[in-house]
Amino acid sequence: MKLLEEKIANEGVSIGTDILKVDMFLNHQLDVNLLDEMGKEFYRLFKDCGATKVVTIESSGIGIAVFTAKYFNLPALFAKKAQHKNVGNEVYSAKCYSFTHGKEYTMNVSKKYLDSSDKVLIIDDFMAGGNACNALIDIINQAGAEVVGIGVAIEKGFQPGGKALRDKGYKVRSLAIVESMSDGNITFRNDDC
Amino acid sequence: MKLLEEKIANEGVSIGTDILKVDMFLNHQLDVNLLDEMGKEFYRLFKDCGATKVVTIESSGIGIAVFTAKYFNLPALFAKKAQHKNVGNEVYSAKCYSFTHGKEYTMNVSKKYLDSSDKVLIIDDFMAGGNACNALIDIINQAGAEVVGIGVAIEKGFQPGGKALRDKGYKVRSLAIVESMSDGNITFRNDDC
Repeated sequence: MKLLEEKIANEGVSIGTDILKVDMFLNHQLDVNLLDEMGKEFYRLFKDCGATKVVTIESSGIGIAVFTAKYFNLPALFAKKAQHKNVGNEVYSAKCYSFTHGKEYTMNVSKKYLDSSDKVLIIDDFMAGGNACNALIDIINQAGAEVVGIGVAIEKGFQPGGKALRDKGYKVRSLAIVESMSDGNITFRNDDC
Repeated sequence: MKLLEEKIANEGVSIGTDILKVDMFLNHQLDVNLLDEMGKEFYRLFKDCGATKVVTIESSGIGIAVFTAKYFNLPALFAKKAQHKNVGNEVYSAKCYSFTHGKEYTMNVSKKYLDSSDKVLIIDDFMAGGNACNALIDIINQAGAEVVGIGVAIEKGFQPGGKALRDKGYKVRSLAIVESMSDGNITFRNDDC
């Protein structure tokens, strides 16, 4: 998605060969017009997947997921990190190690909002090693639901998460795939979509 | 806002006289069409406030805030709970006790995204004692920015947060004010807006 690649190139900050900071428009401050365009693009890419629910992970995925869900006219659902009292005890859970935060956390989804009739479109802001996405897939499998697509805003193509999921047969579409970063230059892989 | 009051009355679950669960449409699963209507209503209520930024608190406020910001054509910004590595050290911070989670946490906003030129519209999903909102106001004050409005989805009118903020002169508008809850019945205060 050219619009996103341009935004990353113009405003994103790469540090070394691995860290990409996009907190100016994607995961702290939010460019809502861009998020809306991303939602529209995910709808174009996944509209024939038969999704019944758009599922993401708090917090950075929520903004993209709600605009996506609006185009699909579907409910959005976000997995919660750690135990929130107001989720209740009846949850599907999976553990996930976060490299960003340097610790393991538990991801929860209430059993009330996912069941075996659901076809899930996963939406998230970042894909690197794929840990968070795999934990969410574990939860969706516990519910007996089906993953019909995985939409990612920014994929780090030099990390194994996206390839591993594609190799397993998942329909993964990333709006921007960073092939490499060095000396502040960001190189994108040819469009995935 | 009748639409929200009806949704709470039809789908919300009150427990005792204090707990209101709306995780089926507002803070776990998200009814994005409702969130969009709430964003439109906040625009109607605050469009003349001169806001330059819509600021909320992760996670449940994000969905409402991004739709609101879309109507305003403004950036959204969410305060992060606890220290996230990717925020950096240059943050405004305030401590906040969460009754929902039974613990104190630190709320952070990067200094890059708030300054003395900003006029902030605060958007959040719930107002009870007002702790989270007051911590966010503290952060906005640290930045030298101005709070021009506070938009709340659901206010617990029997708790002191909303009244205290109105008494201080803030323009607080709540889309639904719960006056009381008992035996599963939810009573609303006359429309605030």
